[in-house]
Amino acid sequence: MIRLGVIGYGYWGPNLVRNFNATPGCVIMTICDLVEENLAKAKQSYSFVKVTKNYRDIIQAPDIDAVLIATPVSSHFTIAHEALENGKHIFVEKPLTLSVKQAQILVDLAQRKNLKIMVDHTFLFTGAIKCIKKVLAEETLGKLFYYDSTRIRLGAFQDDVDVIWDLAPHDFSILDYLIAEKPLAISSQGVDHFETGRINLASIFLYYPDNFVAQIRLNWLAPLKIRQILLSGQKKMLVWDDVEADEKIKIYDAGVDIKTSDNRRDILVDYRVGDVLSPHIVRKEALEEEAKYFVHCINTGTEPLNNGQAGLRVVKWLEASDLSLKNGGQRIAL
Amino acid sequence: MIRLGVIGYGYWGPNLVRNFNATPGCVIMTICDLVEENLAKAKQSYSFVKVTKNYRDIIQAPDIDAVLIATPVSSHFTIAHEALENGKHIFVEKPLTLSVKQAQILVDLAQRKNLKIMVDHTFLFTGAIKCIKKVLAEETLGKLFYYDSTRIRLGAFQDDVDVIWDLAPHDFSILDYLIAEKPLAISSQGVDHFETGRINLASIFLYYPDNFVAQIRLNWLAPLKIRQILLSGQKKMLVWDDVEADEKIKIYDAGVDIKTSDNRRDILVDYRVGDVLSPHIVRKEALEEEAKYFVHCINTGTEPLNNGQAGLRVVKWLEASDLSLKNGGQRIAL
Amino acid sequence: MIRLGVIGYGYWGPNLVRNFNATPGCVIMTICDLVEENLAKAKQSYSFVKVTKNYRDIIQAPDIDAVLIATPVSSHFTIAHEALENGKHIFVEKPLTLSVKQAQILVDLAQRKNLKIMVDHTFLFTGAIKCIKKVLAEETLGKLFYYDSTRIRLGAFQDDVDVIWDLAPHDFSILDYLIAEKPLAISSQGVDHFETGRINLASIFLYYPDNFVAQIRLNWLAPLKIRQILLSGQKKMLVWDDVEADEKIKIYDAGVDIKTSDNRRDILVDYRVGDVLSPHIVRKEALEEEAKYFVHCINTGTEPLNNGQAGLRVVKWLEASDLSLKNGGQRIAL
Amino acid sequence: MIRLGVIGYGYWGPNLVRNFNATPGCVIMTICDLVEENLAKAKQSYSFVKVTKNYRDIIQAPDIDAVLIATPVSSHFTIAHEALENGKHIFVEKPLTLSVKQAQILVDLAQRKNLKIMVDHTFLFTGAIKCIKKVLAEETLGKLFYYDSTRIRLGAFQDDVDVIWDLAPHDFSILDYLIAEKPLAISSQGVDHFETGRINLASIFLYYPDNFVAQIRLNWLAPLKIRQILLSGQKKMLVWDDVEADEKIKIYDAGVDIKTSDNRRDILVDYRVGDVLSPHIVRKEALEEEAKYFVHCINTGTEPLNNGQAGLRVVKWLEASDLSLKNGGQRIAL
Repeated sequence: MIRLGVIGYGYWGPNLVRNFNATPGCVIMTICDLVEENLAKAKQSYSFVKVTKNYRDIIQAPDIDAVLIATPVSSHFTIAHEALENGKHIFVEKPLTLSVKQAQILVDLAQRKNLKIMVDHTFLFTGAIKCIKKVLAEETLGKLFYYDSTRIRLGAFQDDVDVIWDLAPHDFSILDYLIAEKPLAISSQGVDHFETGRINLASIFLYYPDNFVAQIRLNWLAPLKIRQILLSGQKKMLVWDDVEADEKIKIYDAGVDIKTSDNRRDILVDYRVGDVLSPHIVRKEALEEEAKYFVHCINTGTEPLNNGQAGLRVVKWLEASDLSLKNGGQRIAL
Repeated sequence: MIRLGVIGYGYWGPNLVRNFNATPGCVIMTICDLVEENLAKAKQSYSFVKVTKNYRDIIQAPDIDAVLIATPVSSHFTIAHEALENGKHIFVEKPLTLSVKQAQILVDLAQRKNLKIMVDHTFLFTGAIKCIKKVLAEETLGKLFYYDSTRIRLGAFQDDVDVIWDLAPHDFSILDYLIAEKPLAISSQGVDHFETGRINLASIFLYYPDNFVAQIRLNWLAPLKIRQILLSGQKKMLVWDDVEADEKIKIYDAGVDIKTSDNRRDILVDYRVGDVLSPHIVRKEALEEEAKYFVHCINTGTEPLNNGQAGLRVVKWLEASDLSLKNGGQRIAL
Repeated sequence: MIRLGVIGYGYWGPNLVRNFNATPGCVIMTICDLVEENLAKAKQSYSFVKVTKNYRDIIQAPDIDAVLIATPVSSHFTIAHEALENGKHIFVEKPLTLSVKQAQILVDLAQRKNLKIMVDHTFLFTGAIKCIKKVLAEETLGKLFYYDSTRIRLGAFQDDVDVIWDLAPHDFSILDYLIAEKPLAISSQGVDHFETGRINLASIFLYYPDNFVAQIRLNWLAPLKIRQILLSGQKKMLVWDDVEADEKIKIYDAGVDIKTSDNRRDILVDYRVGDVLSPHIVRKEALEEEAKYFVHCINTGTEPLNNGQAGLRVVKWLEASDLSLKNGGQRIAL
Repeated sequence: MIRLGVIGYGYWGPNLVRNFNATPGCVIMTICDLVEENLAKAKQSYSFVKVTKNYRDIIQAPDIDAVLIATPVSSHFTIAHEALENGKHIFVEKPLTLSVKQAQILVDLAQRKNLKIMVDHTFLFTGAIKCIKKVLAEETLGKLFYYDSTRIRLGAFQDDVDVIWDLAPHDFSILDYLIAEKPLAISSQGVDHFETGRINLASIFLYYPDNFVAQIRLNWLAPLKIRQILLSGQKKMLVWDDVEADEKIKIYDAGVDIKTSDNRRDILVDYRVGDVLSPHIVRKEALEEEAKYFVHCINTGTEPLNNGQAGLRVVKWLEASDLSLKNGGQRIAL
């Protein structure tokens, strides 16, 4: 029985608690938050837990094995570091830290202490991603050309991070999981309409080996909610529309075959448009799957796919995005 | 009665001829194409026209007042230049030329000769753009934040131009028409998946004064056809979905009011979501409107809104895109 | 403080309890169900309630003021009758009873005892219906022509009632609420594909005064989920698409004006197509509103709009539908 | 070379002429219409044809082999009859005639004269129907449960026929083509909102052997254009959405297995929801296919699938619909 402490019971913490509470093999011991009202809610829903305003009551508790960290990003490093130092496994909200340097320290520390870090890259545990992973494993799409993601909606302005640090971790972790190769360079554009010091609209372009590219469009100020990813290959093309209730994934038997002749100007283009298949996706809460997986990884010593190294890579690309932004969108080698 | 010659009767030429033929105040005299079969088709549909394989039969004809040029882009400059030299008004497919230098020569020549240049920026003559122009004139949207366009589909690989020179003229001419300010800088990313020498997927970011930005996503290799433009302002937000049969335009009474306090980290965000209005758009073929307008401009001496200068600005931004692409997406000042 | 007992904690009961539990001015005292497991769940979520397998523990309890009845339809009458006899107000799932005769007895009994009956016609408490009610009150649509409802999906075969008794109460209660006139006649078609004794696909047509008609298409065996209502008038037309996440209601400024000349064969049709407005609908759980309203009605003595009489009318139309079905779709006068 | 005369060049006639003119093996000789302006248009587009206001110029012409009849329905019988009497094959708009009696006379006459009748049931020549026919032939759907068609839009009020005679021929001809069994009985409801003598909204229910049913919802007064057909079977379910530009047909691997136990009240329902497949439909104008088929049938003596008998069956069901309407929706045996 893995004994859990939860630090942060604001927006996302209750989701963690609800799902881990329903997961066999673990038990929630203590919940920490700075806001009295949040603790009252926690106590009301889970009368058996202890509550505290001092996160060290969790981190230093001898009867706690692992800590779920759902605090603002700026506090991740300090709390995570102390938790590891105290011998606790950690489950940390994305992004793991505010810098590569911090992430590396955590990764090294966890390794030294033989502890698990799991970063909450929730999308990896959706039915949709499992389906796409399978499609790619079966080489249904052929050689991949591009990943094109749009993640826009009205609202959810964060006062902690900008739109890239808020939303790009979703795409970065998906790319990290799906694409074996890692990006060579990154270029980011963005704008801070309200001069809050944090951009609210951004466009990211990642260059991979062999002409694969990824582009990501992020926007907190859009009237529509769009969460759409195109993943195109030589043989087939896939679209994941996460706003759709049904038919979230469609696989298009469509493509273009291009033959260039000796005379370079003559391109022979052969279009192909065929059936569209929407594979059935089992509806399950991703976090429920992820909670089980965390327990499983600790119990079996399995290295999580969304481990500290994965979290570190995501932070690395975020840092590079920042650097590109600061340099007028210049391409930053990774 | 304006007497017209048409040079190029391949893909787009027949559309020009069909619409100009139905336009009062003009008559099509001669059609030129290099392909025998195309001329046969022209003759079959319009038994009264002369046909020729030599474009100079049109350009030098004393009984022709204006020339419609629907040839590959690389030939625009030569044909247009000769036509102007011979005292003909010209209507040229987009983009006007392959370089700013060429475009400038045409603009200067037309001015000297007191002739009209009209560039076929067809979208400006759609009901949708007229509606948006009116919405902006009435300041319905408030201070503008961004223009975000997606223009993707499967196919239509051009062997003449790349995806930017093919599709960006649509957005550039729309931006030129709708937005009074002109862009300060441009940044472009792209990829040439088939190593044809022409990129087939691109992402363009334009920086305007006062934090207005435009982003444009272009793709010849997408399984879905998307033609969607978001235009967001402080007060309202507009979406133009050109693939929709009805309700092409929606105006969202939605927005975000942001108040930054002294403590810069505290952002007070006030969301607003209200009614959605889809104004009725009259369905008319844009080219029909444009043909009438060309005749009108020549007859009345009116300077076309899509004149040589407009065409030149579009080419200028295309050139800057190319330069950015060649420099790894570097921001190019305009 | 109104003290509530809940009878039936299977599919819908937990929704009632969750909403009434969050409603000020009432408290849930006891929950009854025949299934041990259901009672355990109730106890786990609401540790303060008493649980029982005997509904008379609720009906005869002196410390209970009102009873929520969420049992199978066949048991509604008996339980409701006993509850009223024992001086309890009742809140009953739809349909109120299995016959007009039963419903009339309950209505009479409640009146004699000065108790409230409220039938759970949940849709009346949605933001959408409030919006439509307002649109009709303002005579936006003009003289009404028809109501056309499609309510289909895969599944939810009931072993208690057929597709008409399951789904038509939604439309009947909506019609009863929105349309001042009552239907003159009803005609129903249906089919029982699996020979279970209960039809699973039905089509109902209601004839109202002055050429207003309502048609309702019900289907438990459809691959798509459609919940769409068209409500058309002389001036405007409204569509309520309840499956849409946003823009559930659209008001079309569209119509047809028809002038018949003396020569009856000549019809002059004048089409009108204008803007489409999607009014903002506040998202709130309908049942939460309904729970507050039940408490309000009891406290203030207000007669609920979804009172026993309304429930009785719905049952009357259900009975007439059955009669029509049994007579090959014959039109049954009401 | 089959020599064609065309009678009626109003709304649909030009489509016939355009397609037959492009069909090898036939030539359009003469076009007849009562309106001078229509004839002028015909002459302008097809300078080689003769035009006339007297249909007998076509029917009695020795150099005409077949007559295309696109006149108002009320004149079909007279013209068709004379054409057959004069030894011409006929292609007649739907519905074939205004009565079964008339249709039977034409069928008998054509047989006696060894001439072909083809009724313009255009939908049978769409890619969608060919796809569905194939799906049914392969028994993909299993035992069929129902056909459910919605055919609504704003407008197109006919002053010749009511909404059933205008639109139901589409569904009746599709049913006649797809479903081997023929309906046993029919029930129709409808309303004539403008008291023009012609109903503008209707609902038709057809009863087939073995619990297969078809329902058809027709409406000239709807703000939305819907053309959707559901065809559900024991194994899979198909939806044809003809308003969709792409993915017109979807095949749902979904269904319900129902086992009734001895105790009739206990139904064991087993839901199945799986992949959705949208087969690629070749885009071709249906009328082009039909024109070729007409020429083919005459040349080879093949009996058209949409022959006079098929046209007669459609008229028979229309007559039965009328009878049901006149009798308050009563079920009429066929």
